[in-house]
Amino acid sequence: MAVYTEVSDEDLAAFVASYDIGKVLSFKGIAEGVENSNYLLRTDQGSFILTLYEKRVDERDLPFFLGLMEFLSSEGLPCPLPVSDRAGNRLRTLAGRPCALITFLDGMWVRRPRVEHCAELGAGLARLHLASGRFHMERQNALLMTAWREILESCSDKIDSFETGLKAELFADLGEIAQSWPDDLPRGVIHADLFPDNVFFLGGKLSGFIDFYFACTDFFAYDIAICLNAWCFETDGSFNITKAKALLRGYQSARRLEPAEITALPTLARGAAMRFLVTRLFDWINTPEGAFVQPKDPVEYIKKLRFHRRIRNAAEYGLEQST
Amino acid sequence: MAVYTEVSDEDLAAFVASYDIGKVLSFKGIAEGVENSNYLLRTDQGSFILTLYEKRVDERDLPFFLGLMEFLSSEGLPCPLPVSDRAGNRLRTLAGRPCALITFLDGMWVRRPRVEHCAELGAGLARLHLASGRFHMERQNALLMTAWREILESCSDKIDSFETGLKAELFADLGEIAQSWPDDLPRGVIHADLFPDNVFFLGGKLSGFIDFYFACTDFFAYDIAICLNAWCFETDGSFNITKAKALLRGYQSARRLEPAEITALPTLARGAAMRFLVTRLFDWINTPEGAFVQPKDPVEYIKKLRFHRRIRNAAEYGLEQST
Repeated sequence: MAVYTEVSDEDLAAFVASYDIGKVLSFKGIAEGVENSNYLLRTDQGSFILTLYEKRVDERDLPFFLGLMEFLSSEGLPCPLPVSDRAGNRLRTLAGRPCALITFLDGMWVRRPRVEHCAELGAGLARLHLASGRFHMERQNALLMTAWREILESCSDKIDSFETGLKAELFADLGEIAQSWPDDLPRGVIHADLFPDNVFFLGGKLSGFIDFYFACTDFFAYDIAICLNAWCFETDGSFNITKAKALLRGYQSARRLEPAEITALPTLARGAAMRFLVTRLFDWINTPEGAFVQPKDPVEYIKKLRFHRRIRNAAEYGLEQST
Repeated sequence: MAVYTEVSDEDLAAFVASYDIGKVLSFKGIAEGVENSNYLLRTDQGSFILTLYEKRVDERDLPFFLGLMEFLSSEGLPCPLPVSDRAGNRLRTLAGRPCALITFLDGMWVRRPRVEHCAELGAGLARLHLASGRFHMERQNALLMTAWREILESCSDKIDSFETGLKAELFADLGEIAQSWPDDLPRGVIHADLFPDNVFFLGGKLSGFIDFYFACTDFFAYDIAICLNAWCFETDGSFNITKAKALLRGYQSARRLEPAEITALPTLARGAAMRFLVTRLFDWINTPEGAFVQPKDPVEYIKKLRFHRRIRNAAEYGLEQST
């Protein structure tokens, strides 16, 4: 649910007039995304998304995000294309916020992904990595292991009020994950937040990737680990190995995993569960009661973390290692 | 900000397949309206709004609302047209909610209406009344004076915690409004909630009326009184007589007010302020802290009520009585 910043009539008119996109026909806030304000802008020349970047996005990262979308589009990946104004600027300011106009992408995100969606996702993710690995800009992952520890420490006195013993459990996990974390793996720009609501489908086919605002330079296999967490568990918390198998097979149909990536997968998946758990815990503990946006329940990721802790090798995720 | 009800992938697919509207291209929740869940549905044949009616709307009223939109459209008024499914049904059920698919209307609502918007609104409202007066269905106004009193009484012990003396002041107002309320005036179906976010403009011209879910059979002049409250005050609480004059002149350009309507206008405007004040007070007092939708501040309408109390005749609203 996201429209945090209202745009005045005059500001919108002046903004649109500085682009070569035709006459505005409609302008509506979209109830999607929790980080930024998103508007659907229709003109007589097409449909666009106007995103106003709110506090959580660091303005200095925006040229990277916009450049990445432009690069991936040019490589044939289905993702929104930033639109430049008449002066050639992609990054603008509106209503006191940095903002960008991007093309509208057809398609819908899948509320409950099925096996065939996971297969499509896997193949699409591999194509994304093959392209993004050639992108010339870099951005450090702001949510690495050190950040997980800092976030946990910042709310450490409240973790046990959530579940007794959880604090000790999580710090022990952190230590184990750090010990087995791989030093080096094939790397490049990853999406890093590829949840179902960031992937569009049309007629069962993947039609678009959106929301690149966590993209960063990191291990490709870590992106897969995030997807295993986000796409392959059922709402009752159980792991669906059929979905994971489809995802991994789809991925390898376009990009073959290296042995080191396969070995590291359980640790990466455990780390990915930790990464989303710590931010959800933080939001849960720090969101004032009555806040506009409801924080996501951390319990889901506590369960996932515990699941990955028991995994010994990637075959348990359904990875097929052909010779 | 409104998407209260999520629609599953399967439900949406089955729903769209029962209409002759083509293939779905996108489906997004819209952050507008506080009563219902609204989705923008784009197909290869056009754009539509899918509204899921939430608890506040009485299901038995829906045939009236949908029939009214259809009638007004057929009379050339710019308003959404309900779309029938292949079986001829306009009213359906989706995700456990009554729902309707209506055509998408181009245009934008004006965040800060100017004098020329008020002039357009006045003329448009008169055209709406000329047409809606011929609509064959009736719906009683559920928010008449008796309802105002009931609502106030239901939260009477909390009113003074809002402002000392307010309770006595409001009940005294109720009595005075009741005494001077007109017995009969030209009547027909009125919109009854014509706030700026329910009127679309394109290039300065009124391009659409939306959200007919308070429409009812009542005095036409009461609709004007609601608009005087909703369009002709500045954010600092001051009355802008230039806007009111433009609104009333615009109205009379299409439908001439009768002497009895002119005489009653101050009472109707005072009543309209009371009507929105009591529902805002009720929501303010009864919305649990931390609710998803922030209730609107009643203070704005306390000020408006006090303003109208001092008005002696319609000329003070800028009404020009030509002979």
